[in-house]
Amino acid sequence: MSGKAHFSLEGSGEPTSAGRFVGPRDVAPVEFIDGLQFRPVIGERMLANYVHFDRNSEAPRHVHEEEQIVIVLDGELVFEIDGEVRTMHHGDIAVIPAWVPHRAHTKDNTCLEVDVFNPPRKTLVDHAVAQRDAAKS
Amino acid sequence: MSGKAHFSLEGSGEPTSAGRFVGPRDVAPVEFIDGLQFRPVIGERMLANYVHFDRNSEAPRHVHEEEQIVIVLDGELVFEIDGEVRTMHHGDIAVIPAWVPHRAHTKDNTCLEVDVFNPPRKTLVDHAVAQRDAAKS
Repeated sequence: MSGKAHFSLEGSGEPTSAGRFVGPRDVAPVEFIDGLQFRPVIGERMLANYVHFDRNSEAPRHVHEEEQIVIVLDGELVFEIDGEVRTMHHGDIAVIPAWVPHRAHTKDNTCLEVDVFNPPRKTLVDHAVAQRDAAKS
Repeated sequence: MSGKAHFSLEGSGEPTSAGRFVGPRDVAPVEFIDGLQFRPVIGERMLANYVHFDRNSEAPRHVHEEEQIVIVLDGELVFEIDGEVRTMHHGDIAVIPAWVPHRAHTKDNTCLEVDVFNPPRKTLVDHAVAQRDAAKS
Protein backbone atom coordinates (compact mmCIF):
# COMPACT_ATOMS: atom_id res chain seq x y z
CA MET A 1 0.00 0.00 0.00
CA SER A 2 1.30 3.42 -0.87
CA GLY A 3 0.50 7.03 -0.18
CA LYS A 4 -0.66 7.30 -3.77
CA ALA A 5 -3.47 4.79 -3.16
CA HIS A 6 -4.34 6.19 0.26
CA PHE A 7 -4.41 9.84 -0.80
CA SER A 8 -6.35 9.49 -4.01
CA LEU A 9 -8.76 11.86 -5.72
CA GLU A 10 -10.18 9.02 -7.78
CA GLY A 11 -13.66 7.81 -7.01
CA SER A 12 -17.08 8.04 -8.45
CA GLY A 13 -19.18 8.89 -5.42
CA GLU A 14 -21.16 12.02 -4.79
CA PRO A 15 -21.03 13.59 -1.30
CA THR A 16 -24.37 13.02 0.44
CA SER A 17 -23.95 15.90 2.88
CA ALA A 18 -21.46 18.65 3.78
CA GLY A 19 -18.60 18.21 6.22
CA ARG A 20 -18.28 20.37 9.32
CA PHE A 21 -16.07 21.37 12.22
CA VAL A 22 -17.17 21.10 15.85
CA GLY A 23 -15.41 21.88 19.13
CA PRO A 24 -16.33 20.73 22.63
CA ARG A 25 -17.68 24.20 23.43
CA ASP A 26 -19.93 24.31 20.35
CA VAL A 27 -22.42 21.77 21.69
CA ALA A 28 -24.83 22.40 24.56
CA PRO A 29 -24.56 19.62 27.13
CA VAL A 30 -27.25 17.15 28.15
CA GLU A 31 -27.01 15.31 31.45
CA PHE A 32 -28.75 11.93 31.43
CA ILE A 33 -27.18 11.02 34.74
CA ASP A 34 -25.61 13.11 37.53
CA GLY A 35 -21.99 14.01 36.90
CA LEU A 36 -21.85 13.11 33.19
CA GLN A 37 -22.32 15.75 30.50
CA PHE A 38 -22.88 14.55 26.92
CA ARG A 39 -22.23 16.71 23.85
CA PRO A 40 -23.21 14.63 20.81
CA VAL A 41 -22.04 15.36 17.26
CA ILE A 42 -23.95 13.54 14.55
CA GLY A 43 -22.55 12.21 11.30
CA GLU A 44 -24.34 10.04 8.80
CA ARG A 45 -23.20 6.57 9.83
CA MET A 46 -21.33 7.50 13.00
CA LEU A 47 -22.04 9.71 16.00
CA ALA A 48 -19.30 11.20 18.18
CA ASN A 49 -20.18 12.09 21.77
CA TYR A 50 -18.01 14.30 23.96
CA VAL A 51 -18.41 12.94 27.49
CA HIS A 52 -17.28 14.96 30.48
CA PHE A 53 -17.08 13.09 33.79
CA ASP A 54 -17.08 15.07 37.01
CA ARG A 55 -14.99 13.67 39.87
CA ASN A 56 -16.31 10.43 41.36
CA SER A 57 -18.85 9.93 38.58
CA GLU A 58 -19.94 6.74 36.90
CA ALA A 59 -21.35 5.46 33.64
CA PRO A 60 -22.92 2.26 34.99
CA ARG A 61 -22.36 -1.13 33.38
CA HIS A 62 -24.43 -1.34 30.19
CA VAL A 63 -24.72 -2.93 26.75
CA HIS A 64 -25.92 -1.76 23.34
CA GLU A 65 -25.97 -2.93 19.77
CA GLU A 66 -23.85 -0.02 18.48
CA GLU A 67 -20.11 -0.58 18.16
CA GLN A 68 -18.20 1.99 20.25
CA ILE A 69 -14.68 3.43 20.15
CA VAL A 70 -13.60 5.47 23.19
CA ILE A 71 -10.79 8.05 22.92
CA VAL A 72 -9.59 9.82 26.07
CA LEU A 73 -8.76 13.52 25.64
CA ASP A 74 -7.98 14.60 29.22
CA GLY A 75 -7.83 13.25 32.74
CA GLU A 76 -8.08 9.71 33.93
CA LEU A 77 -10.86 7.15 33.44
CA VAL A 78 -11.21 3.74 35.04
CA PHE A 79 -12.77 1.63 32.30
CA GLU A 80 -14.08 -1.92 32.41
CA ILE A 81 -14.74 -4.00 29.30
CA ASP A 82 -16.44 -7.27 30.20
CA GLY A 83 -14.45 -7.71 33.41
CA GLU A 84 -11.09 -6.33 32.23
CA VAL A 85 -10.27 -3.06 33.98
CA ARG A 86 -7.76 -0.42 32.85
CA THR A 87 -7.03 3.13 33.85
CA MET A 88 -7.10 5.14 30.63
CA HIS A 89 -5.27 8.40 29.98
CA HIS A 90 -4.87 10.96 27.20
CA GLY A 91 -4.77 9.24 23.81
CA ASP A 92 -5.84 5.79 25.02
CA ILE A 93 -8.49 3.95 23.02
CA ALA A 94 -11.03 1.28 23.98
CA VAL A 95 -12.76 -0.79 21.29
CA ILE A 96 -16.18 -2.14 22.31
CA PRO A 97 -17.95 -4.42 19.84
CA ALA A 98 -21.74 -4.72 19.84
CA TRP A 99 -23.27 -6.11 23.04
CA VAL A 100 -20.03 -6.23 25.04
CA PRO A 101 -20.78 -5.02 28.60
CA HIS A 102 -18.76 -2.01 29.77
CA ARG A 103 -18.72 0.70 32.39
CA ALA A 104 -16.50 3.62 33.39
CA HIS A 105 -15.86 5.87 36.35
CA THR A 106 -13.63 8.65 37.58
CA LYS A 107 -11.95 8.85 40.95
CA ASP A 108 -10.65 12.17 42.32
CA ASN A 109 -10.30 13.78 38.90
CA THR A 110 -12.40 14.79 35.94
CA CYS A 111 -12.19 13.25 32.47
CA LEU A 112 -13.05 14.34 28.95
CA GLU A 113 -13.38 11.60 26.37
CA VAL A 114 -15.07 11.04 23.00
CA ASP A 115 -17.21 8.01 22.23
CA VAL A 116 -17.72 7.23 18.54
CA PHE A 117 -20.64 4.95 17.69
CA ASN A 118 -21.65 3.05 14.57
CA PRO A 119 -24.49 3.24 13.84
CA PRO A 120 -25.30 6.53 15.62
CA ARG A 121 -26.41 5.62 19.13
CA LYS A 122 -30.19 5.68 19.22
CA THR A 123 -30.48 7.30 22.64
CA LEU A 124 -28.38 10.30 21.46
CA VAL A 125 -29.63 10.91 17.92
CA ASP A 126 -32.52 13.27 18.68
CA HIS A 127 -30.35 15.48 20.85
CA ALA A 128 -27.51 15.42 18.33
CA VAL A 129 -29.76 16.44 15.44
CA ALA A 130 -31.21 19.30 17.50
CA GLN A 131 -27.69 20.46 18.34
CA ARG A 132 -26.60 20.36 14.72
CA ASP A 133 -29.65 22.29 13.55
CA ALA A 134 -29.22 24.89 16.30
CA ALA A 135 -25.61 25.42 15.20
CA LYS A 136 -26.76 26.04 11.61
CA SER A 137 -29.31 28.68 12.48
CA MET B 1 -34.56 10.24 27.19
CA SER B 2 -33.18 9.18 30.54
CA GLY B 3 -30.06 7.65 32.02
CA LYS B 4 -32.08 4.51 32.62
CA ALA B 5 -32.64 4.01 28.88
CA HIS B 6 -29.10 5.00 27.96
CA PHE B 7 -27.38 2.84 30.55
CA SER B 8 -29.35 -0.34 30.11
CA LEU B 9 -28.32 -3.95 30.51
CA GLU B 10 -31.30 -5.08 28.47
CA GLY B 11 -30.69 -6.47 25.01
CA SER B 12 -30.70 -9.75 23.28
CA GLY B 13 -27.50 -9.60 21.26
CA GLU B 14 -24.43 -11.76 21.63
CA PRO B 15 -21.00 -10.12 21.47
CA THR B 16 -19.32 -11.05 18.18
CA SER B 17 -15.79 -10.38 19.43
CA ALA B 18 -13.96 -9.24 22.56
CA GLY B 19 -13.27 -5.63 23.44
CA ARG B 20 -9.75 -4.32 23.92
CA PHE B 21 -7.62 -1.43 25.08
CA VAL B 22 -4.98 0.21 22.87
CA GLY B 23 -2.60 3.11 23.45
CA PRO B 24 -0.71 5.16 20.87
CA ARG B 25 2.52 3.38 21.81
CA ASP B 26 1.01 -0.11 21.38
CA VAL B 27 0.87 0.07 17.59
CA ALA B 28 3.90 0.00 15.29
CA PRO B 29 3.76 2.89 12.84
CA VAL B 30 3.50 2.70 9.09
CA GLU B 31 4.51 5.67 6.94
CA PHE B 32 2.64 5.83 3.61
CA ILE B 33 3.96 9.32 2.98
CA ASP B 34 6.91 11.30 4.41
CA GLY B 35 6.16 12.98 7.72
CA LEU B 36 2.91 11.09 8.55
CA GLN B 37 2.93 8.05 10.81
CA PHE B 38 -0.21 5.91 10.92
CA ARG B 39 -1.07 3.58 13.79
CA PRO B 40 -4.35 1.84 12.87
CA VAL B 41 -6.62 0.11 15.39
CA ILE B 42 -9.25 -2.15 13.87
CA GLY B 43 -12.75 -2.72 15.16
CA GLU B 44 -15.52 -4.60 13.42
CA ARG B 45 -17.42 -1.81 11.69
CA MET B 46 -15.04 1.06 12.45
CA LEU B 47 -11.30 1.59 12.30
CA ALA B 48 -9.46 4.18 14.40
CA ASN B 49 -6.14 5.49 13.06
CA TYR B 50 -3.69 7.44 15.19
CA VAL B 51 -2.03 9.91 12.82
CA HIS B 52 1.13 11.74 13.83
CA PHE B 53 2.12 14.68 11.66
CA ASP B 54 5.70 15.91 11.75
CA ARG B 55 6.21 19.67 11.34
CA ASN B 56 5.41 21.00 7.87
CA SER B 57 3.80 17.74 6.77
CA GLU B 58 0.76 17.23 4.60
CA ALA B 59 -2.02 14.76 3.95
CA PRO B 60 -2.82 15.84 0.38
CA ARG B 61 -6.36 16.55 -0.78
CA HIS B 62 -8.20 13.24 -1.25
CA VAL B 63 -11.58 11.53 -1.24
CA HIS B 64 -12.88 8.12 -0.15
CA GLU B 65 -16.15 6.34 0.33
CA GLU B 66 -15.63 5.80 4.07
CA GLU B 67 -17.17 8.34 6.44
CA GLN B 68 -14.47 9.89 8.67
CA ILE B 69 -14.46 11.61 12.04
CA VAL B 70 -11.24 13.42 13.02
CA ILE B 71 -10.42 14.11 16.69
CA VAL B 72 -7.33 16.18 17.52
CA LEU B 73 -5.35 15.00 20.56
CA ASP B 74 -2.33 17.32 20.53
CA GLY B 75 -0.82 20.16 18.57
CA GLU B 76 -2.32 22.16 15.75
CA LEU B 77 -3.66 21.01 12.40
CA VAL B 78 -4.75 23.13 9.46
CA PHE B 79 -7.67 21.22 8.00
CA GLU B 80 -9.65 21.81 4.83
CA ILE B 81 -13.05 20.26 4.15
CA ASP B 82 -14.17 20.99 0.60
CA GLY B 83 -12.75 24.51 0.58
CA GLU B 84 -13.48 25.47 4.21
CA VAL B 85 -10.27 25.81 6.23
CA ARG B 86 -9.92 25.74 10.01
CA THR B 87 -7.03 25.43 12.40
CA MET B 88 -7.91 22.56 14.72
CA HIS B 89 -6.64 22.09 18.29
CA HIS B 90 -6.97 19.60 21.14
CA GLY B 91 -10.51 18.25 21.31
CA ASP B 92 -11.71 19.64 18.00
CA ILE B 93 -13.68 17.35 15.68
CA ALA B 94 -14.14 17.31 11.92
CA VAL B 95 -16.98 15.29 10.36
CA ILE B 96 -16.31 14.19 6.76
CA PRO B 97 -19.13 12.37 4.97
CA ALA B 98 -18.38 9.94 2.13
CA TRP B 99 -16.68 11.45 -0.92
CA VAL B 100 -16.18 14.92 0.56
CA PRO B 101 -12.70 16.17 -0.44
CA HIS B 102 -10.37 17.06 2.42
CA ARG B 103 -6.73 17.65 3.24
CA ALA B 104 -4.63 18.58 6.27
CA HIS B 105 -1.23 19.97 7.08
CA THR B 106 0.92 21.14 9.94
CA LYS B 107 3.00 24.30 10.06
CA ASP B 108 5.85 24.71 12.57
CA ASN B 109 4.46 22.16 15.03
CA THR B 110 3.59 18.49 15.23
CA CYS B 111 0.09 17.07 15.62
CA LEU B 112 -1.42 13.85 16.93
CA GLU B 113 -4.98 13.11 15.88
CA VAL B 114 -7.28 10.11 15.55
CA ASP B 115 -9.30 9.38 12.42
CA VAL B 116 -12.27 7.06 12.87
CA PHE B 117 -13.66 5.47 9.71
CA ASN B 118 -16.86 3.60 8.91
CA PRO B 119 -16.52 1.17 7.32
CA PRO B 120 -12.87 0.42 8.19
CA ARG B 121 -10.77 2.24 5.62
CA LYS B 122 -9.69 -0.28 2.99
CA THR B 123 -6.15 1.03 2.60
CA LEU B 124 -5.49 0.49 6.34
CA VAL B 125 -7.24 -2.78 7.10
CA ASP B 126 -4.41 -5.19 6.30
CA HIS B 127 -1.94 -3.28 8.42
CA ALA B 128 -4.45 -2.91 11.26
CA VAL B 129 -5.22 -6.64 11.33
CA ALA B 130 -1.49 -7.47 11.39
CA GLN B 131 -1.01 -5.06 14.29
CA ARG B 132 -3.89 -6.55 16.24
CA ASP B 133 -2.64 -10.08 15.72
CA ALA B 134 0.92 -9.13 16.68
CA ALA B 135 -0.39 -7.62 19.90
CA LYS B 136 -2.19 -10.87 20.75
CA SER B 137 0.84 -13.13 20.32
